[in-house]
Amino acid sequence: MNIPDAIQKRVKQEINLFCKHLPEEPNDLYEPIRYMLSLGGKNLRSSLLLLTCKMLGGKVNDAIPAAIAIELFHNFTLIHDDITDNSPLRRGKPTVYKKWNLNVALLSGDALLIKSYQELNKTPAKYLPAIFQLFNEAALKVCEGQQFDMNYEKQNKVTIDDYLNMISMKTAALFSSSMGMGAIVAGTSKSDCNKMKVVGESLGMLFQLKDDMLDVFGESAQTGKQIGGDIIQDKKTFLLLKALELARGKTKAELIVLIGNTEISPAEKVKRVKVIYEDIGVEEIANKQMEMYYAKAKKSLVSIKTPEKGILLALTGALLERKK
Amino acid sequence: MNIPDAIQKRVKQEINLFCKHLPEEPNDLYEPIRYMLSLGGKNLRSSLLLLTCKMLGGKVNDAIPAAIAIELFHNFTLIHDDITDNSPLRRGKPTVYKKWNLNVALLSGDALLIKSYQELNKTPAKYLPAIFQLFNEAALKVCEGQQFDMNYEKQNKVTIDDYLNMISMKTAALFSSSMGMGAIVAGTSKSDCNKMKVVGESLGMLFQLKDDMLDVFGESAQTGKQIGGDIIQDKKTFLLLKALELARGKTKAELIVLIGNTEISPAEKVKRVKVIYEDIGVEEIANKQMEMYYAKAKKSLVSIKTPEKGILLALTGALLERKK
Repeated sequence: MNIPDAIQKRVKQEINLFCKHLPEEPNDLYEPIRYMLSLGGKNLRSSLLLLTCKMLGGKVNDAIPAAIAIELFHNFTLIHDDITDNSPLRRGKPTVYKKWNLNVALLSGDALLIKSYQELNKTPAKYLPAIFQLFNEAALKVCEGQQFDMNYEKQNKVTIDDYLNMISMKTAALFSSSMGMGAIVAGTSKSDCNKMKVVGESLGMLFQLKDDMLDVFGESAQTGKQIGGDIIQDKKTFLLLKALELARGKTKAELIVLIGNTEISPAEKVKRVKVIYEDIGVEEIANKQMEMYYAKAKKSLVSIKTPEKGILLALTGALLERKK
Repeated sequence: MNIPDAIQKRVKQEINLFCKHLPEEPNDLYEPIRYMLSLGGKNLRSSLLLLTCKMLGGKVNDAIPAAIAIELFHNFTLIHDDITDNSPLRRGKPTVYKKWNLNVALLSGDALLIKSYQELNKTPAKYLPAIFQLFNEAALKVCEGQQFDMNYEKQNKVTIDDYLNMISMKTAALFSSSMGMGAIVAGTSKSDCNKMKVVGESLGMLFQLKDDMLDVFGESAQTGKQIGGDIIQDKKTFLLLKALELARGKTKAELIVLIGNTEISPAEKVKRVKVIYEDIGVEEIANKQMEMYYAKAKKSLVSIKTPEKGILLALTGALLERKK
């Protein structure tokens, strides 16, 4: 996804090194962490952090601790979220929760969160307080977003604004702080740091909306996920909320009948909801919303005075176009 | 328990202030944290941290962030441990897990852990890297100790050394790092800091062994707990492991029959195990072990050159004599 090979490779190397240095015992604490990190992933947040640092003229080595910390933190949230969602699979493999059990997923998740802070503390001391602050702010927002997400599952009335606010916390906060941390380690001005946080925030929103889109309109062979998973689970995504907002008459009645419907087959449900989405044109509306975030990211990025922003600009475009 | 009123009061004030500044929303994330912190507790770890700092001539205000962080961290472990142990009660009130549910206990625990780091980051920058390191080391040890504790529940052969090693991680590590952090903020020498960590480690061991003792030989009215709870749950405490090591012939046979026995009433089980403990004299053996830790703490404390150690010495003695 347009992340330079050298950056990707470095992140993978550092994560492998982290795994190698994990203690052997207690095995039930550390083996799930090694397992989770071995499942791979895009390493997008850490790559954005390193690219930001590089773009702003910082030393990539100084940013490695924060980059690894962000990646470990992200994986911690996945281990615990899989408990909450009772998820059987993650990246095509059994979740820690299912492969082991609740207690192992709970405690190894906790240990991974602490490990993320231990990596963070390897940041050069002069940047540490600011990095630490940004990391904590984002980490709390992720928890808050997750709680709102849980609430919205049970709540009848959820607005588009509620949803956008929730994903800004659950997803975009970590993107924002990643790019902010990259800027801090590059020793950039407060103003440019804030601009990079806006870029990250916008990319995070774009990333999540694209996830919602790929769930419905993507190709299973590319995403590696079951198409329509969100529809089957009645997840209140941007697409569903927008469709509920705009549907009228018989279409609205049918959509309401389809939500929570367990009488028809999942495949039938996905098919019929997709037809409604196409009728209403939520795909184009979501595309416009994403383009708005793309433009916002680009504008903020362009306003920063550095010659090195080509890679990040390309990556921003790639997030909009991604197929997986 | 011989903690000076001013220190106790300050910790309570700061925790109240922390609760007051917690956001209102999402309520299911922050209300369980306020609830947990309202249940009270001895605030022993934070008090030891502040006393250490004071004793070594440091500014108590500089140590407040680490003290509150330690107290929040301790409460985070309780919220998550209550999930693992499926505990109905904590400090005589419903646990977060039972009062709410798994997902709330999981996520509010995570948020409290992150909050503890947010408090820690208020430490003056010059002490932050060292404080952060000690905090992380202890936090990981607590997780490792908890995992070993879980393992030992299922494991047939557990030695006294296994047990002491486990409690040194699960309990003593946090005492040790608390006193170490107090010393760091006081700007003390590396050598004196290490001595204070030894004091904390010894006090933590003493504290846990006393807990084991009070479970069997304490007074319910004073401890606020059901006497013999560990016996009923077949917990492999110092007392049980020592009894298993020393029992011979018919006594050993009876003890083995009693462990895991669900045919007799809990009261009968407690009574009969207690008789065996008294026959073998495990109370005296545990007392000797505690006195060894007391002596170790005292020796380390006495070797530090400061006129202000009277209060800590008194507190060390009080931990040995405590009835609750």
